[in-house]
Amino acid sequence: MSNGLRLREALHVADGGAAPREEWVIEETPVALLYNGLSFAVMMATPADLEDFALGFALCEGIVETPAEFALVDLVRSERGIALHAAIPQARFDALDARQRGLEGRSGCGLCGIASLDAALRPARPVGAGPRFDAAAIHAGLAALSAQQPLNARSGGVHAAGFVDGDALLVREDVGRHNAVDKLVGAMRRAAPAIDPSNGFLAITSRASYEIVHKAANAGIRIVAAMSAPTDLAIRHAESAELTLIAFARDGRMNVYSGRERIAP
Amino acid sequence: MSNGLRLREALHVADGGAAPREEWVIEETPVALLYNGLSFAVMMATPADLEDFALGFALCEGIVETPAEFALVDLVRSERGIALHAAIPQARFDALDARQRGLEGRSGCGLCGIASLDAALRPARPVGAGPRFDAAAIHAGLAALSAQQPLNARSGGVHAAGFVDGDALLVREDVGRHNAVDKLVGAMRRAAPAIDPSNGFLAITSRASYEIVHKAANAGIRIVAAMSAPTDLAIRHAESAELTLIAFARDGRMNVYSGRERIAP
Repeated sequence: MSNGLRLREALHVADGGAAPREEWVIEETPVALLYNGLSFAVMMATPADLEDFALGFALCEGIVETPAEFALVDLVRSERGIALHAAIPQARFDALDARQRGLEGRSGCGLCGIASLDAALRPARPVGAGPRFDAAAIHAGLAALSAQQPLNARSGGVHAAGFVDGDALLVREDVGRHNAVDKLVGAMRRAAPAIDPSNGFLAITSRASYEIVHKAANAGIRIVAAMSAPTDLAIRHAESAELTLIAFARDGRMNVYSGRERIAP
Repeated sequence: MSNGLRLREALHVADGGAAPREEWVIEETPVALLYNGLSFAVMMATPADLEDFALGFALCEGIVETPAEFALVDLVRSERGIALHAAIPQARFDALDARQRGLEGRSGCGLCGIASLDAALRPARPVGAGPRFDAAAIHAGLAALSAQQPLNARSGGVHAAGFVDGDALLVREDVGRHNAVDKLVGAMRRAAPAIDPSNGFLAITSRASYEIVHKAANAGIRIVAAMSAPTDLAIRHAESAELTLIAFARDGRMNVYSGRERIAP
C-alpha cells in the first residue's frame, strides 16, 4: 500500500559540487472515478486517503447529496493508475448521465465533467448563516495547518487542506489543491461522529481558485481562508454562494474579499 | 480588452484593525478550445496572450505538429467565457476525432481530452540530444524569471513559465502553471524568428508535474528547471522522454532527477 511518497535518486548540485542523494518525491497517479460503471472523470492525484477522496469528490461535485447515497464498491490498481468504482442511487445516476449527455455528445474528455463553456461555471447555492471567527483564530488555524503536513514536509510541493473547528484540525494532502479539499470533505463526513462543515473553516496552503470555492460551498463550508492569492472568479463565486473568502492570510494579515460579517478584526 | 487583472475591494485586516482597500486580482475564465467546430476542452485560464495559448496548447497536446497546420479563426467572448475556434488539417482532425471516439463514447467531459486511465498517460517520445548548461546558468535563468512576472507582481498567486536562451528570456503567466507553458510554447513559435526549443531551457516558478514535462517534451524542449518539487510521475516521464528534469532550483542549489548529462555542476 502506497503512502503517497517514493524515494528517488537525484544529483544534488550545490556550492560548485555535485553528489547523488536519495530524495522523497510525491506520487501523482491517474485516478478514475466511476459511478455505477460509468467513467466520469480522471484526476491526477496522490494515491493516499483514496476512500476519503472518493466520497469527497462525489459530495463536492454534487454527484450525491449525502454520504448515505454513496458506496465505494471497488478500488482497482493497475500499471496505468487507480480506478475507484462507486455505487450511487439510480436517480443520482440518471441525473449524472443526463448532465453528461446534455453536454456535447461524444466530444469532451472526463477530467472534470466539463465539455462546454455552459457547463464550466456551475450555479452557486447560498451556504447559510454563521459561524463567526476572530482574525486571530483564522491565523492560528493556518499556523496549525502549516505544522501538520507530513507529506509536504518530506517531499515539498504538496498542497494541504485543513478544517479548523475550535482546537481540532483535520488535514489532507495532495499534489492537487482541489483534490486535497475533496479528500478533506470526505474525511470530515467519514469521521465518527461526522464533522459539521457549518461550524469551522477551511484553511488551505495554496491559492483560492474557482474550484476550491465551488467545492467548499457544495460541501456546506461557510469560510475559506487561503494563504496565497484569490482569483477574480473565486471571489465572484464566493459572493454568489454568500461564502466568506479570505486570502493572503499570513504574517498577521489577511484580506477578506467576501462575507466580511463572519470575521471580527 | 482584458489584461488578465481586475481591481477588487477587500477588507484588509492587520494589527487588530481593518480597512477597505483596492487589490488587484488575477482573472480566471473558462476558455473553450474548438477544432474545426468540435469542442475539445475547456480550461480555466487567465485571459491574456490567448493567441499564444491557442497555438501552444495545440502543439503541446500533439493536436498539430507544426504552426503551419494551425490557424486561429475566431475568438468569441461571452458572459460564460471565451471560445477559441481553430482550423486544423482534415487528417489532424480525423486523428483527434478518433482519439476522442476511442475513449468511452459519450462519457467524459472536455477539460483535457481524457476519459479513461488508458488515455491519461500518453507515451513519451525522446526529445533528442543537447543542449548543455552550467548550473550557474540555470540559476541565473530562474532569477531572471522571478524578476519578470508583471501579473504576479500585482496580484500574487500567478505561475510563470520562461524560456531561457543565452541572455534572452521569454515569459508567459497564467493562473494555471500548465497554461503558462502552453502560452510560452505558442509565443516561442509565433516569435519572428521563431525561438528554437532545442537551444535553451524551460524555467518554471512552480512544481514540475507530469503535465509540465509532457507538454515540454511535446514542444521539443530538452531541459525543464522548476523552483519547487517534482512529482514521481514527472520524473518517470522525463526519463522516458530523455529530458533533463531539475527541481528545487533555488538558493544556489538544485536536484537533477533525470538527464544529468546536460548539466555541468
